[in-house]
Amino acid sequence: MAVNSPLPVAADLKPVGGLDIGYAQAGIKKPGRKDVLVMKLAESATVAGVFTKNRFCAAPVQVSKANLAAVANGGKPIRALVVNTGNANAGTGEPGLANANATCAALAKLLGCDAQQILPFSTGVILEPLPVDKLVAGLPDAIANLKADNWYNAAEAIMTTDTQPKAASRTVDICGHSVTMTGISKGAGMIKPNMATMLGYLAIDAKVSQEVLNELVKHAADHSFNCITIDGDTSTNDSFMLIATGTGSLAIANAAGTEYEELKAAVTDIARNLAQQIIRDGEGATKFITITVEEGDTVEECRKIAYSIAHSPLVKTAFFASDPNLGRILAAIGYAGVDDLDVTKLDMYLDDVLVAKNGGRNPAYQEQDGQRVMRQSEITVRVKLGRGANTATVWTCDLSHDYVTINADYRS
Amino acid sequence: MAVNSPLPVAADLKPVGGLDIGYAQAGIKKPGRKDVLVMKLAESATVAGVFTKNRFCAAPVQVSKANLAAVANGGKPIRALVVNTGNANAGTGEPGLANANATCAALAKLLGCDAQQILPFSTGVILEPLPVDKLVAGLPDAIANLKADNWYNAAEAIMTTDTQPKAASRTVDICGHSVTMTGISKGAGMIKPNMATMLGYLAIDAKVSQEVLNELVKHAADHSFNCITIDGDTSTNDSFMLIATGTGSLAIANAAGTEYEELKAAVTDIARNLAQQIIRDGEGATKFITITVEEGDTVEECRKIAYSIAHSPLVKTAFFASDPNLGRILAAIGYAGVDDLDVTKLDMYLDDVLVAKNGGRNPAYQEQDGQRVMRQSEITVRVKLGRGANTATVWTCDLSHDYVTINADYRS
Repeated sequence: MAVNSPLPVAADLKPVGGLDIGYAQAGIKKPGRKDVLVMKLAESATVAGVFTKNRFCAAPVQVSKANLAAVANGGKPIRALVVNTGNANAGTGEPGLANANATCAALAKLLGCDAQQILPFSTGVILEPLPVDKLVAGLPDAIANLKADNWYNAAEAIMTTDTQPKAASRTVDICGHSVTMTGISKGAGMIKPNMATMLGYLAIDAKVSQEVLNELVKHAADHSFNCITIDGDTSTNDSFMLIATGTGSLAIANAAGTEYEELKAAVTDIARNLAQQIIRDGEGATKFITITVEEGDTVEECRKIAYSIAHSPLVKTAFFASDPNLGRILAAIGYAGVDDLDVTKLDMYLDDVLVAKNGGRNPAYQEQDGQRVMRQSEITVRVKLGRGANTATVWTCDLSHDYVTINADYRS
Repeated sequence: MAVNSPLPVAADLKPVGGLDIGYAQAGIKKPGRKDVLVMKLAESATVAGVFTKNRFCAAPVQVSKANLAAVANGGKPIRALVVNTGNANAGTGEPGLANANATCAALAKLLGCDAQQILPFSTGVILEPLPVDKLVAGLPDAIANLKADNWYNAAEAIMTTDTQPKAASRTVDICGHSVTMTGISKGAGMIKPNMATMLGYLAIDAKVSQEVLNELVKHAADHSFNCITIDGDTSTNDSFMLIATGTGSLAIANAAGTEYEELKAAVTDIARNLAQQIIRDGEGATKFITITVEEGDTVEECRKIAYSIAHSPLVKTAFFASDPNLGRILAAIGYAGVDDLDVTKLDMYLDDVLVAKNGGRNPAYQEQDGQRVMRQSEITVRVKLGRGANTATVWTCDLSHDYVTINADYRS
């Protein structure tokens, strides 16, 4: 199903020193599937993350943010992350918070640390009580199979409507230091990315100070996961966590210099790969669409227009149908909310085909050229606004029958 | 297909004195279907309208706005409206404007008036040249069958992906004056407030000054066409026109007083009926959903939240599936962009069922109660924000397989 996205190969997912992974089948929603993941960290590890801005942010998100804040205020370091699928523990009020904290307490007891040193994450149905007893009962199993070489199982354990696990792994050379980086992601509701629960976990074996890691995760997210999610509008549970285990030879204490810049580029690149895998496996996706808006007055207006195109159901169904009904793209540009946009300066390309010129149909445009591009499984829409020097890119997928089927049947 | 929306009956659609209707089969996109509509007005008529705010607003919209502005600046009154389906004449640049003006000139010649006294409208595919020769060649046929009792044909002539014609007609008593009002509407996708591919034409036989009519059409639109949404797309061509033919006994020169207030209420009510018919016949719609957000700090924040729910594909597919997966509604509330929303004060009802209380699941909520409501073909979602005294309501429909089918096949 996923668009041009080969299955990850377990042997390619390199262990990251200082991080062990365990999983369990706790039967949270259904029996017989991995639904609990534990990631245990070395004491040298630092952790930073970005979270959903949804006002109904889930109980585990609230607890994870609080526990990370405690570290920033001089508390003990994070020692483990725990993820469950099958229930989002969102819209669950005070009992939901109590359940998230109880999960941390139970895992902390098993690992011999404080509850505040655990970060909990959940994904699944909203507004239903978390079956915390089942989750807690599954933790000893997860602890029992903790090992460094468990990334493929980790990728599987966080899947919901994903059709395949998502993972990436690399060893890069940063100024003579070998750095191993391995990550996983999930989240398939991609017709409007802001409505999917997106989870991403990326571990690197460099030693990175908390302050630098905070900057690094924000930069990486802004150029990867935040390019598949509408500005600040996210699901109740979205989280992207960056873990620096500190067991490798590279150590970075300042957000400047060649080592930092090279690490930033490498981390951002693998994060982008993980984010794009989510789009390629979008619910019902048959096409991978890149939307680039250039020559904007600001990056923000470029993003507005790119998202407006990316979110239009009419545009997305046209991609699904391979129908070069490209006026729908112009309509989406027009209602993006850039009020002083002068469309007579606007050009629009589909891959290499100039479709619209100065806001109208390019006289040389032939429908057969648009048709040729629309039949591809990977398509780039390029809009030139003719009013500045800024650019933004977002990635999205088409809207197919299977999207409706998946989301109409998700709970049954 | 349309949700609880009986077909209009031709005999119920009362002629409005001072307005004659003609139509033609001009073969603009396909042969053998009504695709041109002409509405010829008495000299006593006034016309006011609201138009799309899309920056790619279509050539006919630009011309109609300019011609209405000419009237406001002391020009001759509008004498006719002309509508074509099959081509939106949008994204067509300067040639598109020339074609819209050529249409006006051709009709003006046939009617013996100036081109500026004509308002043109188009709906259909964007970014393709208007076959203006075909359109102009169809005008004599439309003129030949002009008559007052042609509303049903008018409703059919403006259909695109609509499955049935949409019309409403009433005779109301306003302070002893009998006022006849008849209207038509079209537009089954791409419906969104303030902009949209939505056309509405409402005629009343009262005499209403231009100034008052401008206020009247704005009020009616804000409480009808501006409160509906199907897929969040907003079109290049949306227009709602209010015509006061001036042939009846009611005359209103000031936007105040009992007569004005009663007329405003009656016009708004029939406009709402026409708008709701669009939703009931939304592309692939199987359910009619009313979303009311109460106790907001501002009307604007209530509308933001209502639209966020109405536009969520996850919410819409849950309605299609009759699945009480109601956490999706909370998620949509949470990402609506009301940044200081305190969800612990929020309640959410599905019809009479209290689903969420103080931001969490109502302890007394039973899934079977939610299931019962979700099976209905008409459902009300009611959100109480607990932070003010303002309210907003929008109407929408579900997202079904047929939506994808219709929009993936629209041009083929």
